[in-house]
Amino acid sequence: MAKAPVLTPRADDFPRWYQDLITKAELADNGPVRGTMVIRPYGYGLWERMQQDMDARIKETGTQNAYFPLLIPQSYLTKEADHVEGFAPELAVVTHGGGKELEEPAVVRPTSEMIVNDYFSKWVQSYRDLPLLINQWANVVRWELRPRLFLRTTEFLWQEGHTAHATYEEARDFAARIHRHVYADFMENVLAMDVVLGRKTAKERFAGAINTLTLEGMMGDGKALQMGTSHELGQNFAKAFHTQYLSKEGKQELVWQTSWGSTTRMIGALVMMHGDDDGLRVPPRLAQVQVVVLAIKGDEAVLAKVREIGDALKAAGIRVQVDDRTDTPFGRRAVDWELKGVPVRVEVGPRDLEAGTAMVARRIPGGKTPVAVDTLAAVLPGVLEEDQALLLHQSRERRLSRTSDVTTVAEAVEATDAGGWARIPWAALGPEGEETLAEHGASVRCLLAEDGAVPDADDAPGNVAVVARAY
Amino acid sequence: MAKAPVLTPRADDFPRWYQDLITKAELADNGPVRGTMVIRPYGYGLWERMQQDMDARIKETGTQNAYFPLLIPQSYLTKEADHVEGFAPELAVVTHGGGKELEEPAVVRPTSEMIVNDYFSKWVQSYRDLPLLINQWANVVRWELRPRLFLRTTEFLWQEGHTAHATYEEARDFAARIHRHVYADFMENVLAMDVVLGRKTAKERFAGAINTLTLEGMMGDGKALQMGTSHELGQNFAKAFHTQYLSKEGKQELVWQTSWGSTTRMIGALVMMHGDDDGLRVPPRLAQVQVVVLAIKGDEAVLAKVREIGDALKAAGIRVQVDDRTDTPFGRRAVDWELKGVPVRVEVGPRDLEAGTAMVARRIPGGKTPVAVDTLAAVLPGVLEEDQALLLHQSRERRLSRTSDVTTVAEAVEATDAGGWARIPWAALGPEGEETLAEHGASVRCLLAEDGAVPDADDAPGNVAVVARAY
Repeated sequence: MAKAPVLTPRADDFPRWYQDLITKAELADNGPVRGTMVIRPYGYGLWERMQQDMDARIKETGTQNAYFPLLIPQSYLTKEADHVEGFAPELAVVTHGGGKELEEPAVVRPTSEMIVNDYFSKWVQSYRDLPLLINQWANVVRWELRPRLFLRTTEFLWQEGHTAHATYEEARDFAARIHRHVYADFMENVLAMDVVLGRKTAKERFAGAINTLTLEGMMGDGKALQMGTSHELGQNFAKAFHTQYLSKEGKQELVWQTSWGSTTRMIGALVMMHGDDDGLRVPPRLAQVQVVVLAIKGDEAVLAKVREIGDALKAAGIRVQVDDRTDTPFGRRAVDWELKGVPVRVEVGPRDLEAGTAMVARRIPGGKTPVAVDTLAAVLPGVLEEDQALLLHQSRERRLSRTSDVTTVAEAVEATDAGGWARIPWAALGPEGEETLAEHGASVRCLLAEDGAVPDADDAPGNVAVVARAY
Repeated sequence: MAKAPVLTPRADDFPRWYQDLITKAELADNGPVRGTMVIRPYGYGLWERMQQDMDARIKETGTQNAYFPLLIPQSYLTKEADHVEGFAPELAVVTHGGGKELEEPAVVRPTSEMIVNDYFSKWVQSYRDLPLLINQWANVVRWELRPRLFLRTTEFLWQEGHTAHATYEEARDFAARIHRHVYADFMENVLAMDVVLGRKTAKERFAGAINTLTLEGMMGDGKALQMGTSHELGQNFAKAFHTQYLSKEGKQELVWQTSWGSTTRMIGALVMMHGDDDGLRVPPRLAQVQVVVLAIKGDEAVLAKVREIGDALKAAGIRVQVDDRTDTPFGRRAVDWELKGVPVRVEVGPRDLEAGTAMVARRIPGGKTPVAVDTLAAVLPGVLEEDQALLLHQSRERRLSRTSDVTTVAEAVEATDAGGWARIPWAALGPEGEETLAEHGASVRCLLAEDGAVPDADDAPGNVAVVARAY
């Protein structure tokens, strides 16, 4: 089937391709207040699947969900000095409520550390109350001057975890557990995304944290995207909010804390990591529709067959949708499913019926083959797993092939100018080098230990900095 | 076990009992901005279970979830005249964003009709795009002058459905389907709540609707609580937003719409409908913990036994939690589970071990009996179903026994003054009678047809008004 290009090709204009894809695949629209977005059902379906999977992983750590208010008294923000400095420029402020000017303005939460800690200080009394492990799924608002759908929006959806522990070690280990066993496992095994796990430099750390762990992915244009972060907060907020517990030994001790978040930005990452010039490609384990069964024409025998195939695939545990909207031309529907990135299309027309086959179109590797209808339910689960693995492989290959090992700041800048990542010894870069990178629009995405692990300190010998331009 | 009262008894001070219960059962705390609340894990767990169940029911109607922005340009609100009049006094207004005064202030959504309709008018082009069935789970803000946890809070969580249809009949039937098959079925079969399904009078209708269907429950003090509403919006918003479609016949037609919502208020209803002087009683089908297995003492054999029982009950499909926190006194833990309303406690101490039994305490009917450990997994599923039915029966009995049939407005007022509901012919009450009721703090909760069904019009002959004081 010859096709006119539906999207601006990536090579011509990557940002425009991204915007095109999001609109045409019906993932989201721009909202009326600058920087906000409307997440349409197909886009929101991706988020729901992400939530389901991550929520189960979060609960496995013993964390419980709760809900804290959207509106926070402005005075709260000043309690932790670094924190307020980090967020002040991004705040949305409610000055009027119920027809009157408020005595104290309220800010719309940009994150919930302040308000969570106010309650933690009431709820934590004894060592018996620890660890206190709380997560919330919520919306937050950070005023965004250069908005881009999913990647930087004034309002976004996320989960934010907040925990309090008796010791430094326990908090450190918990932040690391979320980083690896919730975030990295989910991104690699469900989103089929290659991610680099590392530690942020002091310059890039979360406002108020003593350590920030990050996951960085390489997008289709070679830029980096921060996919999630897990912070050790040390005792900074505990001091500000007097969050203490009576230890077994009868002493008042400050708690050690973590916070960690991942957002609807992951949908943008999905697009930029797996999308191609025909649209999105959704990893099968994430897809709300793994297989769509299309009736090419509206005759009775074809309609009966697509429904029968739909039932058989559902019985085989596949998430399937039957597309029998034959008052819309087949070609238009096929392009639409391609744009939306449904992994497998099973197409059935009158000629296929005669042959006892259906045309199976695979979105991820591409290509079409006739397959005997009787074997579809047996064959497709394996196909989906193959495609899941292929996406992860492709994203990993992209990063490996576009990352250079360098030794000077100039070479690092050159690598990022050429649309790739650079690895440079942290000793050869340092905070000064970071300033130089910033002048060239690049930054240290994370630090890695010599063996590729997450380092325990910024200045551990052998640390390597991963440098890139970032979204 | 003799107990000092943990809560203010309901008969002494119902509102205080309510507040006490919510605090001591750790359902929620007041938030720092007046009228807001922090929903604690145990309270949020109830909401999560409600969401799961309702979300599946909503999806069965073909409705898909989406997400619309929190912030709405102030000018949008003026588009539908009744609507803006209804909501203007409750708005929270953002005047500053990103450190600057905004050119146009934004309101925090009090509901999303305005913004949803703006997008519906873009998405709906042809009859092929209908029906358009959208739901969102979100937070909304309505400035609340007399806040009460869960019942009236400045911010609350809810689902709001918004649909567009080709014909009046289809929209009317959809609103009715949500009313009965999503809301009423859920409330009766999962929340074990007796609800009366009726139609609001013109005075009590949603701002902008042509008909509002409601579900009203009687609380423990005889007052009414509106538990959910489903609105026919007619073409009011379609006209305001020019939401039209090209019909099969090639004509531009305005759509017909519905909207419908249910909120975290249902948690307040759960407390006030099923709670008693010892705390909450959670219906087993809703409970995140249906059975808690308590170790009375911390000796090895007891701890091994409670874990073994926990595993056996889990294998029997029961949602079970093992409480082996034996560094907290048993009595305190038992009172805590009672407050939280977990339907069944299985208590195991050294003496029970010898006898091969466990003490089974049933929260809903009350009482304790020793049960052979080997039979627990076989016996408890039946016990839980019995208790589910008992709660619904009790709430229905309460309403029936406290509702009087009357013929004059004065008698209706008298019945509500005495802590009950009145049923009065609508012909004997009418809009004038409604004004009289309002002077006495009562209102028409809904209209019913002569046979108890939902009437098609306010003035259908034989209509009966249900009158009560309401939350």
